Amino acid sequence: MDGEPRIEAWDRRVDWWLTALAVVFLAAYAWQVLDPAMPEPGATLLEALVTGIWIVFGLDYLVRIGLAHQRWRFVGTHLLDLAILVLPMFRQLRALRVITVISVLNRQLRDDARGRVVFYVVGSVALIGFVASLAVLDAERDAPGASITTFGDAVWWTLTTVSTVGYGDRYPVTFEGRVVAAALMVAGIALLGVVTASIASWFVENLRRAGEKAAEDIEDVEGQLGAVLAELRALNARMDALERDRRPAP
Amino acid sequence: MDGEPRIEAWDRRVDWWLTALAVVFLAAYAWQVLDPAMPEPGATLLEALVTGIWIVFGLDYLVRIGLAHQRWRFVGTHLLDLAILVLPMFRQLRALRVITVISVLNRQLRDDARGRVVFYVVGSVALIGFVASLAVLDAERDAPGASITTFGDAVWWTLTTVSTVGYGDRYPVTFEGRVVAAALMVAGIALLGVVTASIASWFVENLRRAGEKAAEDIEDVEGQLGAVLAELRALNARMDALERDRRPAP
Amino acid sequence: MDGEPRIEAWDRRVDWWLTALAVVFLAAYAWQVLDPAMPEPGATLLEALVTGIWIVFGLDYLVRIGLAHQRWRFVGTHLLDLAILVLPMFRQLRALRVITVISVLNRQLRDDARGRVVFYVVGSVALIGFVASLAVLDAERDAPGASITTFGDAVWWTLTTVSTVGYGDRYPVTFEGRVVAAALMVAGIALLGVVTASIASWFVENLRRAGEKAAEDIEDVEGQLGAVLAELRALNARMDALERDRRPAP
Amino acid sequence: MDGEPRIEAWDRRVDWWLTALAVVFLAAYAWQVLDPAMPEPGATLLEALVTGIWIVFGLDYLVRIGLAHQRWRFVGTHLLDLAILVLPMFRQLRALRVITVISVLNRQLRDDARGRVVFYVVGSVALIGFVASLAVLDAERDAPGASITTFGDAVWWTLTTVSTVGYGDRYPVTFEGRVVAAALMVAGIALLGVVTASIASWFVENLRRAGEKAAEDIEDVEGQLGAVLAELRALNARMDALERDRRPAP
Repeated sequence: MDGEPRIEAWDRRVDWWLTALAVVFLAAYAWQVLDPAMPEPGATLLEALVTGIWIVFGLDYLVRIGLAHQRWRFVGTHLLDLAILVLPMFRQLRALRVITVISVLNRQLRDDARGRVVFYVVGSVALIGFVASLAVLDAERDAPGASITTFGDAVWWTLTTVSTVGYGDRYPVTFEGRVVAAALMVAGIALLGVVTASIASWFVENLRRAGEKAAEDIEDVEGQLGAVLAELRALNARMDALERDRRPAP
Repeated sequence: MDGEPRIEAWDRRVDWWLTALAVVFLAAYAWQVLDPAMPEPGATLLEALVTGIWIVFGLDYLVRIGLAHQRWRFVGTHLLDLAILVLPMFRQLRALRVITVISVLNRQLRDDARGRVVFYVVGSVALIGFVASLAVLDAERDAPGASITTFGDAVWWTLTTVSTVGYGDRYPVTFEGRVVAAALMVAGIALLGVVTASIASWFVENLRRAGEKAAEDIEDVEGQLGAVLAELRALNARMDALERDRRPAP
Repeated sequence: MDGEPRIEAWDRRVDWWLTALAVVFLAAYAWQVLDPAMPEPGATLLEALVTGIWIVFGLDYLVRIGLAHQRWRFVGTHLLDLAILVLPMFRQLRALRVITVISVLNRQLRDDARGRVVFYVVGSVALIGFVASLAVLDAERDAPGASITTFGDAVWWTLTTVSTVGYGDRYPVTFEGRVVAAALMVAGIALLGVVTASIASWFVENLRRAGEKAAEDIEDVEGQLGAVLAELRALNARMDALERDRRPAP
Repeated sequence: MDGEPRIEAWDRRVDWWLTALAVVFLAAYAWQVLDPAMPEPGATLLEALVTGIWIVFGLDYLVRIGLAHQRWRFVGTHLLDLAILVLPMFRQLRALRVITVISVLNRQLRDDARGRVVFYVVGSVALIGFVASLAVLDAERDAPGASITTFGDAVWWTLTTVSTVGYGDRYPVTFEGRVVAAALMVAGIALLGVVTASIASWFVENLRRAGEKAAEDIEDVEGQLGAVLAELRALNARMDALERDRRPAP
């Protein structure tokens, strides 16, 4: 990553642990959202688990800064990661914690799906849609005038938003819910960009390969032509010898 | 299909029968939905016909499992078909029966429309739109607070959904109706994918053909060069003979 | 058109007249819609003009049938034109008269804009949007519960529909208005198809030209190789002569 | 620009000044919109600043006309610029002043982002979205029945509009606000066009380069063939000499 061998080594060591933690986080967060009337001490334990994992992701970020050769440059190029990590400290933006988790899972998914665009897109859409439904429900449930108050509503809202149909029978009314909606829309557009870029680079790859094949063929031709020239020059050299021989000795 | 010769033979034998049954199913289902006040015994007979055909599709699935060499692998790779077949057993998901039927008709349509993307897309959109209108009307008609209560409403809703305009003057409020909406949106996106993939493969096909043409031309050139080299080598061989002759006998 | 020389000759003769009539029709229709409180006899005269031009388009269709070599085949392949011409006879579908007119203007625009996709698309969108605004206002204005009652509303509705934003603050409630909306959505999708097809064929055209250029270059190479072979064969022939000469007479 | 060297020189001299003025304009306009209860004399000073910069842009247009060789042709091909400059004179279209400013900033952005489509698109979307939020808030705030009355509402409306989701919970009700919405939709479509055109021209550029590479390779082959022919002709010439020599003197 950015030519930082120590960070890459760290990545290889913690990658699977972070993925596993992200899955646990997601499960705990889903439980928390879907069962809001959970009795104590369950609710507190779940909240502690979710907050704990979020802190682990924060520590991972700090370790990366520590390992980076050019610390300030690293922070500068990872400002977005920092924002996503720090923003959920504000109670109102708690739901953004899932973005950190999503980005880890998404990386894992992309590594697994290398070259299988359809699989990656379907997986990403399902993951992002599920998480957005949870987050918007978490944000909206208790807001006055909210239209998204059950998980069914949240999934239906996610569906009408991702397809850009937008009936308007359900929509977020809180600031936090609108931030989730914005993240969902941006994620949708980014995915479309990934698909377009994949198709585009597939074309150009095909074009490049066709060009290389033609170049190789022509190189073969040039090789054969070289052989022809060599034979001809040999002939001319013999002709020289012949002419020298035949010149009558004085 | 999946290198299963016995299933392919079965396919060839029952393909047209299943298509005909699907058409009959669609007609009976449409009648059922559009004439909800039908007197007995008509209503019961229609319901029996619709359920009967659905059972035939289920038997077809069982026969395929029976014919498969690797039974569990077949079931594993056809879980979606199974789900679509089993889910309508729940009264609330009855409308999903049409998906099984649609997929048979769609396969027929694709075989007929091979290479004619426009024809296939228009046909698919018309078929899916008609069936979605029926299914959403079936699901919504008697729901409290429903906004889709006539076939005209249902067609209008389908149109605003497929075009992603989504005014929000009509939208499904029941679980079943929302499942129909989700299927409609996914079908729309899948169709877009088919069109994009068709255009993409058309490009690459063109590219491949251009590459093959160039490769053939260059092969011709190499053939000619071979002839040139042969002539040259013949010349050099004669030159050898000439030189040998002219060397003065000692 | 369809290899019908007599229809093509008719086309060349009446093309400009039909275009001019379509423009007059559009102006009269716009006046009719935008000034609904026009005093007599103005209203009756405008209605007569609009209906008269629509009848002329009908006569043009009959003449084409008369000129066609294979009458029934012509009718068969122009069923859509027939439907668009006959449907406005039903008072409720009066607004569909504009489609006939639009298709004539659109053809003219396409001929003028050959190869200038941007110009054609912008022109088509403006034309279709203007006509759809008129038609939907005509259909909705006096309907109970209508939300589109002024030309400003109609233009705003057209804009939110064509962009597929669809806020839902304005939407048609009459059957006629919904048919206009459907036509507008289909026209939008068709335009997108035209643009996609233009870009696709532009690529393939570029590809074809690159291929032709390469084929010509290789033909030059083959020509040169032919010259090389001719020279070589001449050399070999001389060599034959040389050898024949030098063979000692017995 | 249009082969007008004097206008190009003027452009080079004032480009940065105009960009700076546009930034100042945007900041002042944002302040004006976001703090509507500003006490005097601040409000008057800001209004004077905004109007003053707008007049400077008007003078820039007049200078360009003065520098143009073919004055009327210049006015003819810049009618859109003129409209955007003159329309804000009508109090109701005041918000359109920002379009002039946007177009200057957009030009600067495009020059800076040459070849970095993603950067340009993200920058443009952020700039246009911010300005549209300001303009729609300015237009709607005091309208009766308006649903966009805070900057948060305006940003949320912009987001649902640009993504074409269009829930319909917020939408402009004034003429000025609808003009802003129309401009936003057109800008979105235009941006999509820029992206499509970029990808398309990137393909064709790749194709052209592959074609040039092949043409160069084939030129090399032709060069080698030329050498082969030269050698062969030399051989034939020597053969002529040989034959002439060997003809027995009579």
